[in-house]
Amino acid sequence: MRVEILCTGDEILSGKTINTNYSHMARRLGEVGLTVHWGTTVGDDREALLRAFRQAAERADAVIVNGGLGPTVDDLSQEVAAEACGVPLVLSEYWMTRMEESYARRGRVMPPNNKKQAMLPANAEFIDNPIGTACGFAVTIAKARFFFTPGVPREMRRMLDEQVIPRLLKIGGITGVTRLKRFHSFGIGESRADNMLADMEAFTNGAIKLGFQAHFPELETKLLARGADDAALAALLKPIEAEVRKRLGNFVVAEDDQTLEGVVLERLLESGHTLATAEMVTGGLLASRLAPLPGAERAFRRGIVVRDAAQLGINGISTEAAEAIGRRLREESGASHALALLVDLDGADRGADRPDLAGTVCVGITEAHATVSRRAHLVGNRDWIRSGAVELGLDCLRRHLLGLPVDERIDFERR
Amino acid sequence: MRVEILCTGDEILSGKTINTNYSHMARRLGEVGLTVHWGTTVGDDREALLRAFRQAAERADAVIVNGGLGPTVDDLSQEVAAEACGVPLVLSEYWMTRMEESYARRGRVMPPNNKKQAMLPANAEFIDNPIGTACGFAVTIAKARFFFTPGVPREMRRMLDEQVIPRLLKIGGITGVTRLKRFHSFGIGESRADNMLADMEAFTNGAIKLGFQAHFPELETKLLARGADDAALAALLKPIEAEVRKRLGNFVVAEDDQTLEGVVLERLLESGHTLATAEMVTGGLLASRLAPLPGAERAFRRGIVVRDAAQLGINGISTEAAEAIGRRLREESGASHALALLVDLDGADRGADRPDLAGTVCVGITEAHATVSRRAHLVGNRDWIRSGAVELGLDCLRRHLLGLPVDERIDFERR
Repeated sequence: MRVEILCTGDEILSGKTINTNYSHMARRLGEVGLTVHWGTTVGDDREALLRAFRQAAERADAVIVNGGLGPTVDDLSQEVAAEACGVPLVLSEYWMTRMEESYARRGRVMPPNNKKQAMLPANAEFIDNPIGTACGFAVTIAKARFFFTPGVPREMRRMLDEQVIPRLLKIGGITGVTRLKRFHSFGIGESRADNMLADMEAFTNGAIKLGFQAHFPELETKLLARGADDAALAALLKPIEAEVRKRLGNFVVAEDDQTLEGVVLERLLESGHTLATAEMVTGGLLASRLAPLPGAERAFRRGIVVRDAAQLGINGISTEAAEAIGRRLREESGASHALALLVDLDGADRGADRPDLAGTVCVGITEAHATVSRRAHLVGNRDWIRSGAVELGLDCLRRHLLGLPVDERIDFERR
Repeated sequence: MRVEILCTGDEILSGKTINTNYSHMARRLGEVGLTVHWGTTVGDDREALLRAFRQAAERADAVIVNGGLGPTVDDLSQEVAAEACGVPLVLSEYWMTRMEESYARRGRVMPPNNKKQAMLPANAEFIDNPIGTACGFAVTIAKARFFFTPGVPREMRRMLDEQVIPRLLKIGGITGVTRLKRFHSFGIGESRADNMLADMEAFTNGAIKLGFQAHFPELETKLLARGADDAALAALLKPIEAEVRKRLGNFVVAEDDQTLEGVVLERLLESGHTLATAEMVTGGLLASRLAPLPGAERAFRRGIVVRDAAQLGINGISTEAAEAIGRRLREESGASHALALLVDLDGADRGADRPDLAGTVCVGITEAHATVSRRAHLVGNRDWIRSGAVELGLDCLRRHLLGLPVDERIDFERR
């Protein structure tokens, strides 16, 4: 089945807004086994929209149109859809009532121009939007089914998942349910992860599709599975997930919607621990991963950010220095745990940025009766070293809190 | 003149990579007075590329194609361009030599598959790429001129500015030179800025095009001017820039490529000042704006990040507390200046995030013989309040360092 995405709006066409709606839609479709063959962007222009609808209708079996469903005069999607179908716009009494009720619940009167959002092509199939005033709809132009979705990202995302994708799967004769299982790892590159996993039978026989996406410094490992129903899917995935978890081992820092910092915070809160951090050269990146999280007010006591070793009372960086700073930080802050992250850009702190700079990282973790430390030599440009160092520091803390070794060698290190 | 952008590549089509090349190209073209009418995205697929080239050739006067110029088999732009023109590919001896020389300079031998990058359609106009192995080229398909550019962002950006835009302006009969002057402000919304500036004659008579772009919490004010040559352009812009600077006044925090944090750091370094910061609730965002900047190692002494007032030895937030923290921080760190940024989310620290939350911000700036403070009540969701507070803190420091009042009311405050 040939699926296209057609994005509308002057803000997108002119580049003023980066088109993240497109990439979200294309990725989500790929995750459920649908492939996008063509993308089009046009502005809020009647002639261009009509032409784009007609050309897409010739190429595709299904087209998702995004944007142009708002209440203002430059929102043209319904009008141009009706023109392309050769039908008039008619009022959806149902949607009009829903919008009026929604305004009434908030003690407001619906502005008159919102009526425009309830005017749909006479032949349209209504598509619900439970969280906004722009309802979706579907019509057939030439041989293609067109799905119209709102430009507001959260409204589009929900409509795509709940309404559009099920209809697309039906059109494509794709039955059953789909699930995307995700593992987030730190310390192994894409090719090594591929080597660790690709020979598993479920991947080689095509029962489950294996994919990777690098979000430096993390790697996302994706398992895309399809089953007749939820029970069959769970039975298919369970042993495979367990095997992947076992093979990637301690490198898995989080799964699905979890984050590394979220896992660390959860573990701290569960155990009633509290934390203080000190970071040198990473410029607040470590603190800014943890401190703003919901619930962090109960665990995050204090973060210290410095550029220069002298501000921490040390001459240079070492694991001993990291441990000593951790001990002092615990005392001063009253936190149960301290994490010290010291980075030295190997004299490359000045001059032009280059992808082959290097940096030494020393991590020290201190609690009442234990101290652990880790030293690593990372390669990359400055931002790469900084974000790699922050990830390493957080991962060492995760490993320590979970009783895992903190000194497993990672792919980004150079001896 | 009708200009289109055609982006190629499976990574872009599938949504795996967000298409920032498109938005950059469209924005840059807009800045020189060219309007993009249509955007297309297709994958590394011969049939789709050929169809996309032919359809664009029917609609447009000029088409910029991005991507597909690499050395691997899935890079198809030259081949498909030749097919659309009905000409063979021929080797560019010039580019072949240039590539070989470039490899030789780095002491390496060019891999054989790079030869593919010197194969151009027989009728192509060569376009130089001084920083990569993917040269650009131009051909005419039907009535449209096609410009082929590399997918690597920095190579594309340079080729667009130096090679493609001058050719497009020539095709469009647009003479003279263009300049985009940008002002970055904090504290005034788009409609207020428009009210402050729109009546200026240079804007009302169309001599200069005025535009705005919100990058919360900052607002970018853009002046797009065209002149016969650089001297004429400078003469046109100079008085207008001065008037805009005067009208926006102290709210202008930076111009062109400057940033607020860069301006603050520059001022600190010029005066030989050093800085320590303390921040509560903003979770390291303040430190992470300043500390990683090149040169910050000479000025940034220490940052303290806390969630809880008690960690700073205070009971609650106030301007007096911010000043007291600043005084202590100066002493402890040895910095000449201290900036304390205290935020209280007004009891809304827990529960669901909402756009109508509020937060109180207290800023205290301390130096040897002066202390200034500022209190504000900001409205928005949690991220909005945090980034607004950090911007306010940095802006107060900028104002203090420049001898400007720190207490000018901003649009984002509620009494």
